[in-house]
Amino acid sequence: MRKGHVEMTHGAGGRVMAQLVEELFVRHFDNDFLNQGNDQAIFEGPGGRMVMSTDGHVVSPLFFPGGDIGSLSVHGTINDVVMSGARPLYLSAGFILEEGFPLADLERIVVSMAAVSKEAGVPIITGDTKVVEKNNGDGVFITSTGIGVVPPGVDISGSKARPGDSILVNGFIGDHGIAILSKRENLEFETQIVSDSAALHDLVAHMVEAVSDLHCLRDPTRGGLATSLNEICWQSGVGMKLREDSIPVRPDVQAASELLGIDPLYVANEGKLIAICPANETDTLLEVMRAHALGQNASVIGEVIEDKNHFVTMETGFGGSRIVDWLAGEQLPRIC
Amino acid sequence: MRKGHVEMTHGAGGRVMAQLVEELFVRHFDNDFLNQGNDQAIFEGPGGRMVMSTDGHVVSPLFFPGGDIGSLSVHGTINDVVMSGARPLYLSAGFILEEGFPLADLERIVVSMAAVSKEAGVPIITGDTKVVEKNNGDGVFITSTGIGVVPPGVDISGSKARPGDSILVNGFIGDHGIAILSKRENLEFETQIVSDSAALHDLVAHMVEAVSDLHCLRDPTRGGLATSLNEICWQSGVGMKLREDSIPVRPDVQAASELLGIDPLYVANEGKLIAICPANETDTLLEVMRAHALGQNASVIGEVIEDKNHFVTMETGFGGSRIVDWLAGEQLPRIC
Repeated sequence: MRKGHVEMTHGAGGRVMAQLVEELFVRHFDNDFLNQGNDQAIFEGPGGRMVMSTDGHVVSPLFFPGGDIGSLSVHGTINDVVMSGARPLYLSAGFILEEGFPLADLERIVVSMAAVSKEAGVPIITGDTKVVEKNNGDGVFITSTGIGVVPPGVDISGSKARPGDSILVNGFIGDHGIAILSKRENLEFETQIVSDSAALHDLVAHMVEAVSDLHCLRDPTRGGLATSLNEICWQSGVGMKLREDSIPVRPDVQAASELLGIDPLYVANEGKLIAICPANETDTLLEVMRAHALGQNASVIGEVIEDKNHFVTMETGFGGSRIVDWLAGEQLPRIC
Repeated sequence: MRKGHVEMTHGAGGRVMAQLVEELFVRHFDNDFLNQGNDQAIFEGPGGRMVMSTDGHVVSPLFFPGGDIGSLSVHGTINDVVMSGARPLYLSAGFILEEGFPLADLERIVVSMAAVSKEAGVPIITGDTKVVEKNNGDGVFITSTGIGVVPPGVDISGSKARPGDSILVNGFIGDHGIAILSKRENLEFETQIVSDSAALHDLVAHMVEAVSDLHCLRDPTRGGLATSLNEICWQSGVGMKLREDSIPVRPDVQAASELLGIDPLYVANEGKLIAICPANETDTLLEVMRAHALGQNASVIGEVIEDKNHFVTMETGFGGSRIVDWLAGEQLPRIC
């Protein structure tokens, strides 16, 4: 820490980032909200529990199949808020612009933010604009913050996974990361791979209503499904057993991943969630998820087990078993 | 807009920035919160009125006499929240780091943020970290968001200045901008000029308690006192008459400003506020402000008048009168 420098891995969402957050931010800011280790903080507001979450966006390229930095910032921030089970209320947006960036592109981004914010019913009510000199920024960075209200009785946290619980996802994983990478590298596939970027508040509202004792929700963004599951294992002090065959991956994403030499388990998603619930609620939850447009391809991918090592293991298609570790290095920089 | 590019003036806090905000963000995001034109948004929370404000920080250099980007981000965001009369509750912080930035410097910034946040009693409860490649950022940018609770009966807005109202400031203006510029240009003065960066929540709490019908509060940051007063004139549909002799400026700041060819009226402050109140409350408000450590040099600098042109005019020391316009160009880039 005293001699090192910031490396790309510090922002990659894997183990190195977790260490930076732990040793620097959590250590010095030192409060129970951060100690919870969630992507959002729940606090007691004047009229009940509320939630706050913030997210910087530095995605490159700014425009990609299925979205842009603007829609991504709105979706991503809404999702971080609702992974507490909350109903999102409002957003703020802080822009850091690079001198020379075309105003027409900025307008395109703002129009896109406005559209998805209106569609979600979560208005952007305050903001800020800063400008830095050419080559001290990169077009546009957007940091957005969201606040919401946690319904009475809802108590969701990455620390609440219990042995025996079921682990679900709401659909195909890896789409966002592969869409970004394909655009960045100018790769052409038979079908265009499109980001799954979407706001999950409505899906979550249905899930929370149907299953009163939902234990965990998390959106597997940077670091992908594998890293988010490891985070939950660490927070809850448990292990997990996954079944590879049950993890939904689109054939074209699978093919692109193989071509690029990356594993879809570590690729960022922007419209996906992990849900962990008691075993006896599994069928109810799966049914509610599949009935929603953003959960049609939902699947039960494994279960929570006791494991003092907090490992995520996976039964492979060939009957073997392997450990699914945290993202170690930097797989895809500036994915969100 | 369609053909232009982002220029440094778009972030300078003056008229060009106001136009960008109006024509792009307010137009497309299109909601009553933004239409209010304040630095924060007041909304109806589950238990009463709450406030949210966000602020990006790109100050250069990162460390300066009287503070650093970390303490500035905490002070600046608390101040934007409390200029609604609110009690601040919580902060979030989003970091955008440049690859290669020394971790020891980052730790120094985080320690500083932690210290001023604890001193103010406003914890940083959630955050985010992103990393961009070398030369796509500049060390560290921090975007912080604050939320607070507006006490019952308090109704403060830049739109509430009325002819006859008194205009007060809580002390010497221009310190922050001149401190930054001196450091940036390696200027040596007999005495070191130190930023006035400070959290104003306690001062404001006393002011709000003493004067129940305070009309406006605003912290004159980018664009300085002159621009903030013009903003209020525009929002309230009034004019203002200032007395130059009554505007507190430290002699060394005055001397440095003359040397640098800039006007302290347009220089950013980070621990100052403008307060506008009914004439009959002037003495009470001034007394309360002067009794506080952050208001010892408070002064009544002028009054609100009727003026369909919404001009700010100033009686100079020599008995003349001049118009104090909005900041026009870019005076001091990356001041906050």
